[in-house]
Amino acid sequence: MKSHRKELWFETTTRRAYQNITGEVERELAASGIREGLCLVNAMHITASVYINDDEQGLLRDYDDWLERLAPHAPTSAYRHNQTGEDNGDAHLKRQVMGREVVVAVTAGALDLGPWEQIFYGEFDGKRRKRVLVKIIGE
Amino acid sequence: MKSHRKELWFETTTRRAYQNITGEVERELAASGIREGLCLVNAMHITASVYINDDEQGLLRDYDDWLERLAPHAPTSAYRHNQTGEDNGDAHLKRQVMGREVVVAVTAGALDLGPWEQIFYGEFDGKRRKRVLVKIIGE
Amino acid sequence: MKSHRKELWFETTTRRAYQNITGEVERELAASGIREGLCLVNAMHITASVYINDDEQGLLRDYDDWLERLAPHAPTSAYRHNQTGEDNGDAHLKRQVMGREVVVAVTAGALDLGPWEQIFYGEFDGKRRKRVLVKIIGE
Repeated sequence: MKSHRKELWFETTTRRAYQNITGEVERELAASGIREGLCLVNAMHITASVYINDDEQGLLRDYDDWLERLAPHAPTSAYRHNQTGEDNGDAHLKRQVMGREVVVAVTAGALDLGPWEQIFYGEFDGKRRKRVLVKIIGE
Repeated sequence: MKSHRKELWFETTTRRAYQNITGEVERELAASGIREGLCLVNAMHITASVYINDDEQGLLRDYDDWLERLAPHAPTSAYRHNQTGEDNGDAHLKRQVMGREVVVAVTAGALDLGPWEQIFYGEFDGKRRKRVLVKIIGE
Repeated sequence: MKSHRKELWFETTTRRAYQNITGEVERELAASGIREGLCLVNAMHITASVYINDDEQGLLRDYDDWLERLAPHAPTSAYRHNQTGEDNGDAHLKRQVMGREVVVAVTAGALDLGPWEQIFYGEFDGKRRKRVLVKIIGE
């Protein structure tokens, strides 16, 4: 069994952002030399997500509006977590809706994705350096 | 390490549907000959889910009502995504709540599921042919 | 390829509870002797979650309030599932928001977690004995 590990770093210019990282993950798969296996991609921070969906600008704005309705950023006093001095209580909730991680099949040396599947980094408390882990195992 | 890959195809008769696919996944595990490992089951389309929960008709209707409250189908004009000519903006949101994939342990040649765990295909934009990927790795 | 399997048992004293199980999972990884691979941790029951987020008491109460708003326990008659004699319809919905499972990379014999990542058991229908599965594969 082979394994490959890589941290991807991001620093978004906005508090919330949705960034297509499929190309970066494909590069790591190529570097790994793995042909058959599983590829885990997970946020290493607890106010961010890795998820798979469509790379369509309207949809990304729909997600953002919807997450703000489900878990609004303001008033920040609505979250007990923010009594610790943080203002990111909402981000911990938004991340649970979108998920921490994806596991993608590796087949014949490629990410085994459906026609519209794209891997996204979802940031809900950005403007600072944060990491995503790519871990691939297989042969 | 062995690996096994299979696409399962579905075409639901309704826009939204919840279909128990545990038997199909078990068949693929048997075909794989794998005794110990991990089994990934994921929707290959971005308006559908694979999730694990109870096969109880009342619950399936509760899920459907709840997802409609969280992300209503109509008015379709409420979603920017639908300005692309689609009417499935809601389906991309519903799928995030229910998830893209499950990873199930394989132990002694069987899916290592709890007593009530059943694997479901959740369709949120159906009436056309769509796929689920089963990928099993192990020994 | 090596594999390791362990069931962790829980019985919470309250209907809903959020319990940090990172230490238990680390113990299983040590017992496995696996240095590189993937670690699956999943609820074996369909009214509970395994998720990763912060171990901060305010946040845990924020999660609990938020899940009650998204899927209230009462009135129990609001869920068709409860016509089966259950009163846990809400718990099946809450669990979908928080997720069934996490997959954690194993690197150099340790759980490859970010600085604040902690593995939690989320119970939404407690006060009885329930299980979490830890399955680790690798070398």
